[in-house]
Amino acid sequence: MSPVLELARALIHLPSVTPEDHGCQALIAERLVQMDFRVESMPFGEVSNFWARRGIEPPLVCLVGHTDVVPPGPYELWTSDPFDPVIRDGRLYGRGAADMKGALAAMVVAVESFVAAHPDHPGSIACLLTSDEEGPAVNGTAKVIERLQRRGELIDYAIVGEPSSIEQLGDSIKHGRRGSLTGFLAIHGKQGHVAYPERAKNPFHASVQALAALCAEVWDQGNEYFPPTSFQIANLSMGTGADNVIPGRLDAQFNLRFSTAIDPDTIKRRICAILDQGDFEYEIAWRLSGLPFLTPIGTLIEATRAAIREVCGTEPDLSTGGGTSDGRFIAPTGAQVVEVGPVNATIHQVDEWIAVDELERLPRLYQRILERLLLGC
Amino acid sequence: MSPVLELARALIHLPSVTPEDHGCQALIAERLVQMDFRVESMPFGEVSNFWARRGIEPPLVCLVGHTDVVPPGPYELWTSDPFDPVIRDGRLYGRGAADMKGALAAMVVAVESFVAAHPDHPGSIACLLTSDEEGPAVNGTAKVIERLQRRGELIDYAIVGEPSSIEQLGDSIKHGRRGSLTGFLAIHGKQGHVAYPERAKNPFHASVQALAALCAEVWDQGNEYFPPTSFQIANLSMGTGADNVIPGRLDAQFNLRFSTAIDPDTIKRRICAILDQGDFEYEIAWRLSGLPFLTPIGTLIEATRAAIREVCGTEPDLSTGGGTSDGRFIAPTGAQVVEVGPVNATIHQVDEWIAVDELERLPRLYQRILERLLLGC
Ligand SMILES: [Zn+2]
Ligand SMILES: [Zn+2]
Repeated sequence: MSPVLELARALIHLPSVTPEDHGCQALIAERLVQMDFRVESMPFGEVSNFWARRGIEPPLVCLVGHTDVVPPGPYELWTSDPFDPVIRDGRLYGRGAADMKGALAAMVVAVESFVAAHPDHPGSIACLLTSDEEGPAVNGTAKVIERLQRRGELIDYAIVGEPSSIEQLGDSIKHGRRGSLTGFLAIHGKQGHVAYPERAKNPFHASVQALAALCAEVWDQGNEYFPPTSFQIANLSMGTGADNVIPGRLDAQFNLRFSTAIDPDTIKRRICAILDQGDFEYEIAWRLSGLPFLTPIGTLIEATRAAIREVCGTEPDLSTGGGTSDGRFIAPTGAQVVEVGPVNATIHQVDEWIAVDELERLPRLYQRILERLLLGC
Repeated sequence: MSPVLELARALIHLPSVTPEDHGCQALIAERLVQMDFRVESMPFGEVSNFWARRGIEPPLVCLVGHTDVVPPGPYELWTSDPFDPVIRDGRLYGRGAADMKGALAAMVVAVESFVAAHPDHPGSIACLLTSDEEGPAVNGTAKVIERLQRRGELIDYAIVGEPSSIEQLGDSIKHGRRGSLTGFLAIHGKQGHVAYPERAKNPFHASVQALAALCAEVWDQGNEYFPPTSFQIANLSMGTGADNVIPGRLDAQFNLRFSTAIDPDTIKRRICAILDQGDFEYEIAWRLSGLPFLTPIGTLIEATRAAIREVCGTEPDLSTGGGTSDGRFIAPTGAQVVEVGPVNATIHQVDEWIAVDELERLPRLYQRILERLLLGC
């Protein structure tokens, strides 16, 4: 069994559901220490994080990842135990196989191979791991980056091993992400009996035109790098369950994924302007989960593209779509950030898998990016 | 203490929350038996009902009521124990004081007084009581009426002791009620991640225009006797609680209170026509809780009006507004039905009360209606 497959299996075997690390980081730290990395543990709350670095010179290339996985869901829906990795038909099955224990294993093997060949490489290699990427992400990468910034330790290039590929390894990389803004809206009416609507005020009836306007609003056209901003109502609730009571309150929770063509304050102002047109009282609270970020074409993207061409024989698309990732915490420090990793077709689903041949090609891909960035070849 | 006040207090003291009768009917039956009523117990399921009749000739005047009360809610919100009736400032406080143990007591005292004065009255007097008017009302009045109809026992005049008055005793009587139709609507979309709206279909976004159209629809103009039909969404729910998931399903429950200017099939057809204009799949189920009914001006209403003029010195408004009542089960048999009872301002609320002076005027009011109907004077 290849080293990357062996390590991926060992990691999947540890049921590290967010925020549990369950020994994954220790397994990786042990390998890094063997290569003379200085490994700093940075736990915050119940989240395990570490920062490992080899070398003191710039440029600093950082491999970024998370050891936590989303819950497997009902075991009986899985063909085999989600935490007992098995290979069937050339695929390695298990929770985290694609998101992202396969990539973590590949990064370790890539660094081992690189360091063995170039023990005195110029620049520095770092590894930043968290056990809370799939959760609230408050005590994870964000806190580590904050700590690094306070002491002036700057990442030049961040390679995030998230599953960025769509159909085959290397067909797509992400060089940015949209921002995410959530709104918590309470619309106030007046409770009453359905038989006396004139004595009550139905908060849904009062606000439905405003809600329709929010759903229909075109927020921006996107731009060269980003698709247009999208608005989705994720949760709605109103009523006591009784069919003879006009409820006094409607709660709606919505989320926007927004581009760099707009900013959160403008979004908030436009939403309130739409709501203000209605004849109802409301309260609104906001949670900004991340600003959009973008790494323009430059050293990191070129190195990644060249490595993909070489290892996968394909030309990657550049994308900013999809969900948020911990890249949002690193990009604002001025680092170039790219996400490059396996196919994301089965992530967060039952019977998650990674193709064994792609998993085995992945260490070489990460190693070639390291070589291009640190050795220029 | 007056007999009506004494009996009202005894009834309130029994905590007969739906469907519990808790001995109320036995208390009343005992009094009726003393007057040579033949009392038939008609329990169905956990509901207590009785049918008591004095006389065999037509016309049959029936006094209709319920011994159950709605739950008192949090005791600590009550100034005094809801089941320990007390008089403060000329008001009798307690759960059921206004809805409708005060009226039940008044009916018993009215019949006692009437029978004492006219032991050989023409026609018949009946009393129909249930302990499930405030609940599903399946095993209550509806079942008793069904039983009576099967044996050909027909009510000519039904006097329902529900609290029909608005500000003072006798200012309003009800001679009909709107129908009630509930719809259970499920709108189907396609679940997905908010970051990929193009792969999902938000059931709220898809249906909001149709829902707005339902809220804005003018169903009819009402008519001489009924206010226009009203539509209210009583319950809405959508979403998993997560802010990053586009939900796959929206559930809405709505209720219409409809007049005789429209019928339930027309309402259903028009609702489906509005929904069919949208680009979404839906399922809908219906519950028809009652058809509208109306007692035109005639013997019963004239007798009631005259008695009110005499006893209360006021001219009652005729109304068909408000919630449903058990009159809906009696009117379809061809009976004339009127609801006449105390002020409804505090019913179903904490600190429910009835004015003692109005409670003490109520037996005379019911007695005068009986006299007009049975003695013609
Ligand atoms: Zn991930
Ligand atoms: Zn009632």
